[in-house]
Amino acid sequence: MPKPPDATRRSERSRTAILDAALALITESGYAALTIEAIAARAGVGKQTIYRWWKGRGEIVLDALAEQVTAAGPPALPDTGDLEADLRLVVRATVAELADPKLSEITRALTVESLTSESFADQVRDRILRPQLDTIKDRLRGHVRAGIDPDLAVELFVGPMYHRWMLRTGPLTEEYADALVDLALAALRPGADRG
Amino acid sequence: MPKPPDATRRSERSRTAILDAALALITESGYAALTIEAIAARAGVGKQTIYRWWKGRGEIVLDALAEQVTAAGPPALPDTGDLEADLRLVVRATVAELADPKLSEITRALTVESLTSESFADQVRDRILRPQLDTIKDRLRGHVRAGIDPDLAVELFVGPMYHRWMLRTGPLTEEYADALVDLALAALRPGADRG
Repeated sequence: MPKPPDATRRSERSRTAILDAALALITESGYAALTIEAIAARAGVGKQTIYRWWKGRGEIVLDALAEQVTAAGPPALPDTGDLEADLRLVVRATVAELADPKLSEITRALTVESLTSESFADQVRDRILRPQLDTIKDRLRGHVRAGIDPDLAVELFVGPMYHRWMLRTGPLTEEYADALVDLALAALRPGADRG
Repeated sequence: MPKPPDATRRSERSRTAILDAALALITESGYAALTIEAIAARAGVGKQTIYRWWKGRGEIVLDALAEQVTAAGPPALPDTGDLEADLRLVVRATVAELADPKLSEITRALTVESLTSESFADQVRDRILRPQLDTIKDRLRGHVRAGIDPDLAVELFVGPMYHRWMLRTGPLTEEYADALVDLALAALRPGADRG
């Protein structure tokens, strides 16, 4: 028997409240403090409601972020005709997000859970990361010398900043973002393989 | 009153047994399965002995790895005169380690704990990571065009492979390692900034 419309509406309201609560709490207090209890209290639902739909807090954060991404539509890189300027914009924005202790808590959560579970990592990759990487890949098309793997080209922009953020090896500043874009573009530019 | 020599020797034997047990267990069964109980049983000590010296399993793995690094002496990059060949050797070895589910468990453990605690991250950086990054930095000296931050130059080699490993975005093969070295060197080479 199908659920009556009221129950479906109530379910959907609870589900949205849980996702919103998780994102609000993680940004306010960090992933370490995020518990199912806290999410349930904030969302005004019982813990059992949460466990009926999710295995743990990581899955809730992933779904919440994935819905945000879906609602925002496919991410687009600006295309002003100036590749370097467009990439600086994106890399600066990512570096600024990583440098912000609150904003970066979502990335921290997804990275920790990805390192702990392969199936979780694959979901993060396919639902969150791949669409972001693909926008950079698309924007680089036609600007990269022949023979370079486009996935590796994108990693040259994103790998260094995540490494620096994760391992706290240096400052995450606008100057750093610009220097990274300069260097990665120098690697990809036609003619750069001739020493 | 100073400890009698026998007690000191016994302490040192226990400490070494605990560190060895942690490394053996993590390589055999992974970090998820590593518990203080399992380490105590394998080392033949009581759990209280472990908790007297360490706060948790992450700290034990860190100390164990740091002692290995210290015992092995400062890491050295080969210097055959052929920079590209030397870097390929190092990057291939790192990629092979990351591609190995058992060998990479120690890196996984240290990364997860680094994302969870800033003071832990700083210890990993200073005791394990920095000496490794510095060997690459030293080897690059004199081969990088003026104005490039040496720390960023090193990140160009290590960032992409850790990103790929962590987020499972592509294969970790010898071909990948070589392509990464080619690309990073192309960025750093004198003249690469002239498009």
